[in-house]
Amino acid sequence: MIESTAMTRTATGAHTLPGEYFTSQELYDRETDRIFLQQWICAGRASSIPEPGDFFLHEMDGESFIIIRAESGQINCFYNVCRHRGTRLQQDSCGHIKSRIHCPYHAWGYDTDGNLKSAPNMMGKEGFCEQDHSLQAVACVIWQGFILINQKQPGTDFQAGFHDILHRFDHWQLERLVSAHEITYEVAANWKVIFQNYSECYHCSLVHPQLRPITSVETASNDFEEGHFLGGPMILADDFKSVTMNGQFCGSPFNDLSADDLRRVYFYTLCPSLFISPHPDYVLTHRIERVDVSSTRIICNWLFPTDAIEQDNFDASEAIEFWDLTNRQDWEICELTQKGVQSRAYQPGPYSGLESMLAAFDQHYLSLMAMN
Amino acid sequence: MIESTAMTRTATGAHTLPGEYFTSQELYDRETDRIFLQQWICAGRASSIPEPGDFFLHEMDGESFIIIRAESGQINCFYNVCRHRGTRLQQDSCGHIKSRIHCPYHAWGYDTDGNLKSAPNMMGKEGFCEQDHSLQAVACVIWQGFILINQKQPGTDFQAGFHDILHRFDHWQLERLVSAHEITYEVAANWKVIFQNYSECYHCSLVHPQLRPITSVETASNDFEEGHFLGGPMILADDFKSVTMNGQFCGSPFNDLSADDLRRVYFYTLCPSLFISPHPDYVLTHRIERVDVSSTRIICNWLFPTDAIEQDNFDASEAIEFWDLTNRQDWEICELTQKGVQSRAYQPGPYSGLESMLAAFDQHYLSLMAMN
Amino acid sequence: MIESTAMTRTATGAHTLPGEYFTSQELYDRETDRIFLQQWICAGRASSIPEPGDFFLHEMDGESFIIIRAESGQINCFYNVCRHRGTRLQQDSCGHIKSRIHCPYHAWGYDTDGNLKSAPNMMGKEGFCEQDHSLQAVACVIWQGFILINQKQPGTDFQAGFHDILHRFDHWQLERLVSAHEITYEVAANWKVIFQNYSECYHCSLVHPQLRPITSVETASNDFEEGHFLGGPMILADDFKSVTMNGQFCGSPFNDLSADDLRRVYFYTLCPSLFISPHPDYVLTHRIERVDVSSTRIICNWLFPTDAIEQDNFDASEAIEFWDLTNRQDWEICELTQKGVQSRAYQPGPYSGLESMLAAFDQHYLSLMAMN
Repeated sequence: MIESTAMTRTATGAHTLPGEYFTSQELYDRETDRIFLQQWICAGRASSIPEPGDFFLHEMDGESFIIIRAESGQINCFYNVCRHRGTRLQQDSCGHIKSRIHCPYHAWGYDTDGNLKSAPNMMGKEGFCEQDHSLQAVACVIWQGFILINQKQPGTDFQAGFHDILHRFDHWQLERLVSAHEITYEVAANWKVIFQNYSECYHCSLVHPQLRPITSVETASNDFEEGHFLGGPMILADDFKSVTMNGQFCGSPFNDLSADDLRRVYFYTLCPSLFISPHPDYVLTHRIERVDVSSTRIICNWLFPTDAIEQDNFDASEAIEFWDLTNRQDWEICELTQKGVQSRAYQPGPYSGLESMLAAFDQHYLSLMAMN
Repeated sequence: MIESTAMTRTATGAHTLPGEYFTSQELYDRETDRIFLQQWICAGRASSIPEPGDFFLHEMDGESFIIIRAESGQINCFYNVCRHRGTRLQQDSCGHIKSRIHCPYHAWGYDTDGNLKSAPNMMGKEGFCEQDHSLQAVACVIWQGFILINQKQPGTDFQAGFHDILHRFDHWQLERLVSAHEITYEVAANWKVIFQNYSECYHCSLVHPQLRPITSVETASNDFEEGHFLGGPMILADDFKSVTMNGQFCGSPFNDLSADDLRRVYFYTLCPSLFISPHPDYVLTHRIERVDVSSTRIICNWLFPTDAIEQDNFDASEAIEFWDLTNRQDWEICELTQKGVQSRAYQPGPYSGLESMLAAFDQHYLSLMAMN
Repeated sequence: MIESTAMTRTATGAHTLPGEYFTSQELYDRETDRIFLQQWICAGRASSIPEPGDFFLHEMDGESFIIIRAESGQINCFYNVCRHRGTRLQQDSCGHIKSRIHCPYHAWGYDTDGNLKSAPNMMGKEGFCEQDHSLQAVACVIWQGFILINQKQPGTDFQAGFHDILHRFDHWQLERLVSAHEITYEVAANWKVIFQNYSECYHCSLVHPQLRPITSVETASNDFEEGHFLGGPMILADDFKSVTMNGQFCGSPFNDLSADDLRRVYFYTLCPSLFISPHPDYVLTHRIERVDVSSTRIICNWLFPTDAIEQDNFDASEAIEFWDLTNRQDWEICELTQKGVQSRAYQPGPYSGLESMLAAFDQHYLSLMAMN
């Protein structure tokens, strides 16, 4: 396996972003406006709220969203804000609501589609129109089992934006997978440092000794080389069936995979909030949440088919242990990088040919930041 | 009891304040300039410093004030700042000073009227005039036993400003009451959220189930309907003598109360720092201190006549328990409201007719904020 | 002993700095630009890294510096930032490096003179020039055993700047002294409050009762009365050989001292980061590090000749205890002063004749702040 021409070309002459992109509150706020309020953000998995009335709260950038399965079965997303005095409606991080979302202050009640259904001393009063006081909705789509939300009003066209990657994961039947394990990490680094760390394996031999025998940076290539989605496969060494501590499968390999895919692990970044990494027998995902300019929350999930998880001898620990170890190694080096790029002395450094996806990420990021 | 016409009128069409009033540092600073540095602020009770030389520190907005009873018996208020190098003079939160307030750094000494009386190596030196280095005084009046201070130079006319409410509480002989109990609360909400919560009982039935049998929002009316002082009475239900856990008196009812007042509890807000709530047998007060844009300190006192407190069987616990429970319920809902109004999605919502005092508070607040 | 004419003259009519100099982030940042990025800063002692490859990290204003003894024996100072992705190179606060400073991310390696010696997948690639990617060096000189660094590019002339004080301490043979003890203090006060506290003994009789019998403010004079270096001697009382708890020597008196110097303790400030206080038998030093506008870290060392420390009965505790006690008294009063100068009411106060060095410090400080 060799670096593609395009890959080498992209990185040649490219340098890392200036330090202010990792430290400036002003640029952070511009990211909010130009990226996080414009793009589809992954908020979780649909499988976590299977029944009508099931909900969870998604917290992001100081905002709280109620993501709820409505009576119709559809998943809705609302700002967690009462239309009366602005009170936060729901405090529990997840749960089940029976018919009404009630405000705890004055008992205003909304149905699971956000319609105001009761407001003591208000309903029926002259000049009060309940239709004007529905919960404020956020665009919400389900794709491959992921709940994606978009605060832009009116929302951007999901199909158009995700066109290129829409069916990329069909063979792994992502919408049927459920999480066997979840770990949340708090990392003292800017979210872009996390994206950049995920986007190259130049660091693998030094930072991840346990990965060395399984796959090597020389086998890496990319099938998304520019734009919103980036990444591609690495090839498993002969003795390894999957990326796990013992090199064996945790689940059964997915049925529909080609012979090539059975020998590959993929690493994709979906700007600005999701990594998807299909393995022969499971799919690893990282959900990325900005916390502030120098810290990021990362929610890592190990997704398996339901029937695999339900088997008596199912044990995901070899996969969990491998990536938890690898994650922690990554976060440590990301934190060191954050510290360094905050220095007055930091200057953009040269990307190597093995870092073409970082150059591509930076280019796309800068194009989003330049938009109005 | 019914809502007065004026009450309904005030709230009709009125909406809550825009979110920036609960989140913006710039508006917080403007409040400092236009309200907190202009208005009379309650700093405590005169009865806490009965003897000449007795003092306590009042901390507010990062400032520290020495409030001290002078040799003459008068109560003075000084910035807690030495005129030499600026050192904080007093550290103890309360105590007794014998003749001189001494700076702990270089032993400069001031009398209880703030005059510089000793300054080693300075007094008598050419060009040094001790009269130029008195402690900086803050206007201070005692009203109904409350110590009110005003940082405006020269101070505003207290009598004119408090004219309307000056004798409102005479029947409760407030200046003779002392605190049987004090609780300090730290609440993660803007001070105006606290004022607004106190100014309506629309929330009572949901938030305060223990209050339901005692008095109801339908009995509420207001005798101060606009301006700096707002509020009015609610009527006790037949089986209740006062607002306490068991519905009985903790002390004896005040001697001078009319038959009507013996059946009422009043709720008044005194912008920007005090709530006074006369009951038939005691007076509940809340002192409000801004801490920052999203947090507030509240000091609650249960005031009784000295002779009631001194009785062998005196027990205020039924009153204390009732309002401590009610306070905590209020602070919790205030914190949820602060969270909500911080949301990008929050928009001013419509006040109900039961929230006329909130509309009146907002109107007065905005008029103060608009002044130069 | 009397105040010199110059001393009195300097302070007459002078007042303390306005409050903003102790509270403003903007002025703090201007200090960074005009003082801390321009002047020589004490980073520690050369004796702490005796062997080639020995290093320690110096943290300052959010920056991290590697101070390392090179193969040649010379001491170098580098920003702790990799030239590739900016990663912090060294995490350990001190240690020994074998031939290469390696980046933990992608294994770029630098020699102890900062030259890039290895960069996997980069070295030898077209367009990559390793000479362009040396570690960024900071000017570094050793004077009297102190490591002084200067971030200005190109560095200022050390000999010219330190001309006046260059040989002031020769009789104490400072370069041969080593630290018998070190204590680090965190103080909630602006760094200038610390300098000013050190620069007068007007406060000694009140704040430091243990110092009273040993030496008195009336004996104080100054041989550096203006400019970057300030201070002078105080005279020991007859019964005291040194400034220690028991008034006796901890070590032997220095050989080369004059009869006068054997009866004196000196207090010098070296703007903006060092105090040196020679005693007859040891030298006390304070290294001052700004932390933020209202806090400062102070590293205090008790320096003795190696041969004194190596004696069996060597015991520095009488000196350590004395100055640790005195330091803590000073930091407490400095914290009270910081609180006071943050007040809205604080106004510059008059310096006494005993505070001439503070007036001189302020004057020099303001001249540095005015420079471009």
